Amino acid sequence: MFLADVVGTVVSPVQHPVLENQILLLLRVLDAHGRSTGVTRIGIDRAQAGVGDRVLVVDEGNAGRQMLDSPDAPVKTLVLGVVDFVELEGELVFDHRTRAPLERLERP
Amino acid sequence: MFLADVVGTVVSPVQHPVLENQILLLLRVLDAHGRSTGVTRIGIDRAQAGVGDRVLVVDEGNAGRQMLDSPDAPVKTLVLGVVDFVELEGELVFDHRTRAPLERLERP
Amino acid sequence: MFLADVVGTVVSPVQHPVLENQILLLLRVLDAHGRSTGVTRIGIDRAQAGVGDRVLVVDEGNAGRQMLDSPDAPVKTLVLGVVDFVELEGELVFDHRTRAPLERLERP
Amino acid sequence: MFLADVVGTVVSPVQHPVLENQILLLLRVLDAHGRSTGVTRIGIDRAQAGVGDRVLVVDEGNAGRQMLDSPDAPVKTLVLGVVDFVELEGELVFDHRTRAPLERLERP
Amino acid sequence: MFLADVVGTVVSPVQHPVLENQILLLLRVLDAHGRSTGVTRIGIDRAQAGVGDRVLVVDEGNAGRQMLDSPDAPVKTLVLGVVDFVELEGELVFDHRTRAPLERLERP
Repeated sequence: MFLADVVGTVVSPVQHPVLENQILLLLRVLDAHGRSTGVTRIGIDRAQAGVGDRVLVVDEGNAGRQMLDSPDAPVKTLVLGVVDFVELEGELVFDHRTRAPLERLERP
Repeated sequence: MFLADVVGTVVSPVQHPVLENQILLLLRVLDAHGRSTGVTRIGIDRAQAGVGDRVLVVDEGNAGRQMLDSPDAPVKTLVLGVVDFVELEGELVFDHRTRAPLERLERP
Repeated sequence: MFLADVVGTVVSPVQHPVLENQILLLLRVLDAHGRSTGVTRIGIDRAQAGVGDRVLVVDEGNAGRQMLDSPDAPVKTLVLGVVDFVELEGELVFDHRTRAPLERLERP
Repeated sequence: MFLADVVGTVVSPVQHPVLENQILLLLRVLDAHGRSTGVTRIGIDRAQAGVGDRVLVVDEGNAGRQMLDSPDAPVKTLVLGVVDFVELEGELVFDHRTRAPLERLERP
Repeated sequence: MFLADVVGTVVSPVQHPVLENQILLLLRVLDAHGRSTGVTRIGIDRAQAGVGDRVLVVDEGNAGRQMLDSPDAPVKTLVLGVVDFVELEGELVFDHRTRAPLERLERP
């Protein structure tokens, strides 16, 4: 599992019924200090996350299948939760309440 | 899952019936801005993708097996969809309609 | 499996019953000399570990599911043990008894 | 899946019947242009490949087990096919017929 | 699978019966030339390997479970064999008989 910031969305028709109505989030993977590691992932939203949220991500097939209640879903990266706080060596380094708001995308 | 550009094709006889008639695409893995990360993968085409397309890729064995309807296929990387749009921090950074066309390979 | 230092904690509501009461540890992945590799992971605590501990971590779905007695838990990174000693080329390079204590977080 | 050049062989007695008579190939992982990425893998030969061949490789446990007809084989990296051609952006960048021959190892 | 040098050992009580009496080896991952890649792993010894040995390693959950005869073991990295020879482009680059001996750790 790792931390990431939701930085955008991806629109791509996928030929699989389970993925058809899922929101694909563009994720920037972070280190312990909340700095970008340069790695990008595309994740399926399971936490009502949006652009500007810091999120907890799992990158594993079985996890994806279980969360979507579909043993056959071709899924690998899932956004599991929106992060409220990150504490690093006893100091609060991320607090969702004081984060500068980013523009949120409209979603159906 | 991650984003990639289809940059070419690979021809390699593979000793497994499920893989025999599959198209092997040469994929350049991208970051959130659509820049190359330097990583290359070979993926099986499940989205009628071709050279010049930006695609959504999953890199996991079970996904491959399920999409090919073969529980035993030795498959790890699958091209799931051709990307239409990528929005990054509220801005449209990729639009398939305005992309400069690349030469497309003839395929049977 | 790899070595890591527990450097913090993450608070994130996760929509899955198995994960609800788990402690999420912020992990700094280490090399053989105990130096940071720059990689960060979030792991579930199964070893009563806390900030300042050096730990043994496994990064795999099935391991997570088995340790939590739940075949369906969307878990990938688990803290399995607190490290007592690391010996490198015949020399003791880590000894938990002589480590400089870090501030420990209060946990319920 | 990825491309690699077979650059050598490894001899190591392995305590598992399925692996005992397998040829272990030393693989140099390549990017889209056929340049080394600096990553090395050891793969089991399933394609009569030898030193000097460019090959298609899959790096996943289930693939290995299926190809070896053994559900329990502790195998992760398999050489699936010898590559004939690689086309990059419409140009033939690898052609096995015009490749400079490397010294081939004698194999039983 | 990959090559590594055993450079040390790790002592860590692990809360799982299968892992309790296993030796945890500190592994330095190598490239084709036998140079360190900077990556460190902790592996379970299944080959009577010790500090100073060059070894063949598999990094996958199912492999670990099968070798330990325990379908539930939370194991990911296994030392499968001690390497005798590595041949690179027709040249013998590693020969266990002429290797400079390192100090071996006493093990019960």
